[in-house]
Amino acid sequence: MTIPYSCDTITSPVNPRVRQAAGLREADARRTAGLTLVDGRRELSRAAAAGVTIEEVFVASEHPPADLADWLADLAGRGTRLTPLAERPFAKIAFGSRNEGVVGVVRFAPLSLAQARFVADRPLLVIEGVEKPGNLGAILRTADATGLGVIVCDGRTDPANPAVIRASLGTVFTVPLATTIVAELLPWLRTNDRRVVAATPEGTTPWHASPLAGRTAILLGSEAHGISPRWRQAAAADEIDFTTVSLPMRGAADSLNLSVTAAVLAYEAIRQEEMTA
Amino acid sequence: MTIPYSCDTITSPVNPRVRQAAGLREADARRTAGLTLVDGRRELSRAAAAGVTIEEVFVASEHPPADLADWLADLAGRGTRLTPLAERPFAKIAFGSRNEGVVGVVRFAPLSLAQARFVADRPLLVIEGVEKPGNLGAILRTADATGLGVIVCDGRTDPANPAVIRASLGTVFTVPLATTIVAELLPWLRTNDRRVVAATPEGTTPWHASPLAGRTAILLGSEAHGISPRWRQAAAADEIDFTTVSLPMRGAADSLNLSVTAAVLAYEAIRQEEMTA
Repeated sequence: MTIPYSCDTITSPVNPRVRQAAGLREADARRTAGLTLVDGRRELSRAAAAGVTIEEVFVASEHPPADLADWLADLAGRGTRLTPLAERPFAKIAFGSRNEGVVGVVRFAPLSLAQARFVADRPLLVIEGVEKPGNLGAILRTADATGLGVIVCDGRTDPANPAVIRASLGTVFTVPLATTIVAELLPWLRTNDRRVVAATPEGTTPWHASPLAGRTAILLGSEAHGISPRWRQAAAADEIDFTTVSLPMRGAADSLNLSVTAAVLAYEAIRQEEMTA
Repeated sequence: MTIPYSCDTITSPVNPRVRQAAGLREADARRTAGLTLVDGRRELSRAAAAGVTIEEVFVASEHPPADLADWLADLAGRGTRLTPLAERPFAKIAFGSRNEGVVGVVRFAPLSLAQARFVADRPLLVIEGVEKPGNLGAILRTADATGLGVIVCDGRTDPANPAVIRASLGTVFTVPLATTIVAELLPWLRTNDRRVVAATPEGTTPWHASPLAGRTAILLGSEAHGISPRWRQAAAADEIDFTTVSLPMRGAADSLNLSVTAAVLAYEAIRQEEMTA
């Protein structure tokens, strides 16, 4: 089976369509267009399986992924444009070292708190300061594996960043996920009756001795700065139900990797669920 | 206080000393020289605190880190050569985006199983297939925080890789650590009376229902391929005490991030220790 391309091979790396796609690496361009770039077979498959609209797939025409021909034909049948690119324009939109021959343009933007659909009685991971796309991607993989939702509330990190999508292995499309800011999140937590359990080095309760299952919001600050002061103010003003937990830090370093902390707490929540099930 | 440089500023990026230092990004060059590159203040401080010999520190002479002058003078007093570099040669040896003005050449090579000093009665993390330096770095941070040792046994990954050192935030210098191959590790585990607990998707026991504390070797395979067949052969031949555990994978993806799995199991081991203490 051959790939049913929609047009001839684009050979120029300054072709307007290629430049527009490459521009989706910038957050502003993504927001304006409501589109993002998805690099990789597995990631694109998960987007499609999750019902995300795949507007266009650029295919490396000099090394076409033959085993994907059926799948690409199926996408074309549902309206996806298949565009062959020569090596130089393809390199412009693909991630350098992990080229898998397909890069898609998909309709995807993070949901708001009001739009997202979370499971009411299971924990959420609330990520306040995520410095690296790779960390958010790893957290989304953990959320996928544990069936938890994720709220990103730092006002900066865009889960639609192609580097996040890639690091998440496409789970960003399937995990219940919202982006918000802390001023919106505080009243939402109260309305939704969610207890906040914050992981901080100063936490007095060991992570496994605090109830993490049920209607919790497991809060993680940045590796460098921890959680923002607004949380303790809200706790002091009784705006939220707020407790802290700590993980042992017995060594030379003073912080854990953010995605590691998220995973330890997510799986501890699952353990507690399984113990009481 | 000014920085007591050992020589004039090097301005050429093809200066032989700069090229030699940059060459330490290659594993062969590191092995031959017994040296590696350490980029970053915190990482270099931890190397020094761990008693690692710092042969030379290259300093970005156009943006010298003034707050480090005392520390650099102290190093010079103990024999470290301080070499000022202009922007272009400095860029050649520093990590692009996280330039902190100092890059060191240190005497460091991973220890063998026979050389490493592990705590006898606490778990070890055994990492068989670590694809990315960032993952090994994150695992070393977890090992540092939990006080566990690490054995890298894939025969490929070099913990002295500057990218591992950086991702570990310098904890690679303080965590008990050995590199080996599986053929050497199997008899060592038997001699040292260590039970192997392997994390695999096919594991029948939930991770929290298996004893992880004590004299265990918590075994983690690669994200793509899992543990190598040699382990099950050794188990079948009664060469090792071998059990498997699994972590829930409830979502779209079929694997967790390797450093995430390591952390969940390391902290579960700590939890079990604390429950029986």
